[in-house]
Amino acid sequence: MSTTERIAALRERLRERALDAAVITHPSNRFWLSGYTGEDIPPNESGGHLVIGLDAAYLVTSRLNAEQARQEAAGFTIYDKERDFAKADAAVIRELGAQRVGFEDQATLYRDYRTLRDELGEDVELVPLDTLVDDLRAVKTPEEIELIARAQALTDQAFMQVVATMRPGQSEREIAWRLEQAMRELGADGPAFPIAVASGPNGALPHYRPTDRRVQAGEPVVIDMGAMLDGYCADLTRTVWIGQAGEQLEHVFSVVLAALDAAEAGMRAGMTGKEVDALARDVIAAAGYGEAFTHSLGHGVGVRVHEAPYLSPRGDRPLEAGHVVTIEPGIYISGWGGVRIEDLAVVEPDGIRILTTVPKRIVVTP
Amino acid sequence: MSTTERIAALRERLRERALDAAVITHPSNRFWLSGYTGEDIPPNESGGHLVIGLDAAYLVTSRLNAEQARQEAAGFTIYDKERDFAKADAAVIRELGAQRVGFEDQATLYRDYRTLRDELGEDVELVPLDTLVDDLRAVKTPEEIELIARAQALTDQAFMQVVATMRPGQSEREIAWRLEQAMRELGADGPAFPIAVASGPNGALPHYRPTDRRVQAGEPVVIDMGAMLDGYCADLTRTVWIGQAGEQLEHVFSVVLAALDAAEAGMRAGMTGKEVDALARDVIAAAGYGEAFTHSLGHGVGVRVHEAPYLSPRGDRPLEAGHVVTIEPGIYISGWGGVRIEDLAVVEPDGIRILTTVPKRIVVTP
Repeated sequence: MSTTERIAALRERLRERALDAAVITHPSNRFWLSGYTGEDIPPNESGGHLVIGLDAAYLVTSRLNAEQARQEAAGFTIYDKERDFAKADAAVIRELGAQRVGFEDQATLYRDYRTLRDELGEDVELVPLDTLVDDLRAVKTPEEIELIARAQALTDQAFMQVVATMRPGQSEREIAWRLEQAMRELGADGPAFPIAVASGPNGALPHYRPTDRRVQAGEPVVIDMGAMLDGYCADLTRTVWIGQAGEQLEHVFSVVLAALDAAEAGMRAGMTGKEVDALARDVIAAAGYGEAFTHSLGHGVGVRVHEAPYLSPRGDRPLEAGHVVTIEPGIYISGWGGVRIEDLAVVEPDGIRILTTVPKRIVVTP
Repeated sequence: MSTTERIAALRERLRERALDAAVITHPSNRFWLSGYTGEDIPPNESGGHLVIGLDAAYLVTSRLNAEQARQEAAGFTIYDKERDFAKADAAVIRELGAQRVGFEDQATLYRDYRTLRDELGEDVELVPLDTLVDDLRAVKTPEEIELIARAQALTDQAFMQVVATMRPGQSEREIAWRLEQAMRELGADGPAFPIAVASGPNGALPHYRPTDRRVQAGEPVVIDMGAMLDGYCADLTRTVWIGQAGEQLEHVFSVVLAALDAAEAGMRAGMTGKEVDALARDVIAAAGYGEAFTHSLGHGVGVRVHEAPYLSPRGDRPLEAGHVVTIEPGIYISGWGGVRIEDLAVVEPDGIRILTTVPKRIVVTP
């Protein structure tokens, strides 16, 4: 699907809602609809906005970014006449003669809303879009799935290279940095999110940043990483150990693996996020660890590492063919550590296809 | 200045404005006031908010981040009972009994404002804070200046190491990656912003991302980089070349260097951003390149790489002792390339102190 087709899909939704235009401020949505990769330093330094009418599409940006915008955003008119992008949005909206305009209430600063409101006056109605464009992005085309699969293959390869050389005494930080270097040297544009390497007790915090703690033989080491490649993300977690695991680690690992297997065997298009989440959660709860699975089972992955759909106890959206989701049950025990195992999967009409190729159980020889 | 003293300074401003509390949503302000380093994936995944009353301070976050928040944010009560942080903010505001509450209109999503408005009802007044906390951060303490100086020293060292090994035929991307590796290996937590390496004609775009273009002898190569270390940023630009420069490069370089020298010799506390900007801009304009200096002279640097004060033709804030600012004149010529030279300086009561130690003119031996 080209950006032209994506814009056509957006316009169809705008017409359904009787909207004349939409202001797009979410950086991932902006990239997905235009191909423009201008940088943002959120919350208050934006690389640009889109204003998409039913017949015209504008990219609002600074003069400094205008040349890049022209090169990347085919089919967009570049508007760089105004330092305040919300004022520029308003000028474009007036030029379009739009009367009912959607805006991304979950991605627009209050100040920008206020500027739009003040500039446009009461004749123009501003309508919250909620996650309209995020939702359009959730179902991936075959080309997008191929891009995600390539990012995942690169991630898997970097993981296997580095984990094979893990030894007791290496620090979490050192291992994380070698994982990042391996991804970059294999061609990644960068990490899709900060790499987590959480050893021993540190693994009890699901989003732990690497420290100077040195990994020891026999303890769980949770590694969570993903490459960004050509605008798309990957996501991989494995829990590995060096040498012989203790009884508790073997047991907890087997429960998490059984939960993952149950979810992967049972999930299919049509089930809600909540139903998929329960496939894994029930296994963990039956083993007595219900309280220790402190997060959702999974989330969508695409141009953003966390996006719709959400496989959570509150997820009521049905899975569709073309969704790409993580499946990542975990058990976290304060003072001891954690085990999480995460695959990335594409939902297909008759089941799922796992993109991840890394083995589940990895014991490093000391 | 500890976070306690920073909070005291904020409370003084709140009292001056007859406010009972403030909701802090800007990640840099949140870190500066609390020490909490929880991650955000803006615009819509927040690591947490602060709600600071006149006698109590709360950090609103998710259950997953609560342990980290407890460890990092001394003196804050951690509130993790609500998945929607704006609803949590409202609950805390009600608990505090606050009636007039400031919020960061330049860092708060419209949706969160709407939630606050709906949850709190008409009895509570919501007052935009504009850049109140950003402005408090602009004047640095000696301890903060020391942290910035350390980040800059590390940046300078990485730059000198890698630039010495630049050779014709290396790609921009390869050089940028080696600069990033050098910073990380010298102890940086990461780059403060994506490193720019813009060779030949690519240098005409001030914020160019490294490409596969191979650098050639005799052409300008603009390198812009900075380390992040212990929460503080550095910022360095040099324009280097390999071997013999042509006449145009020598000339443009001499004009930019003269502009930098003029600004550094003339700037002092009490001058407005506009006056400082003019010191350099006048030199460039007098040489006939006025239109080619397409950006401001400089910006503040601290926990964020771009912050107040702004040395721009629109800057009306006077420089104060304790400001840390870049000074970075440039000339950009479409089709040919660019030259920018950037130092980082602390404003002192009787002049400025340059933190940057890298020589201005660097000719690499081929």
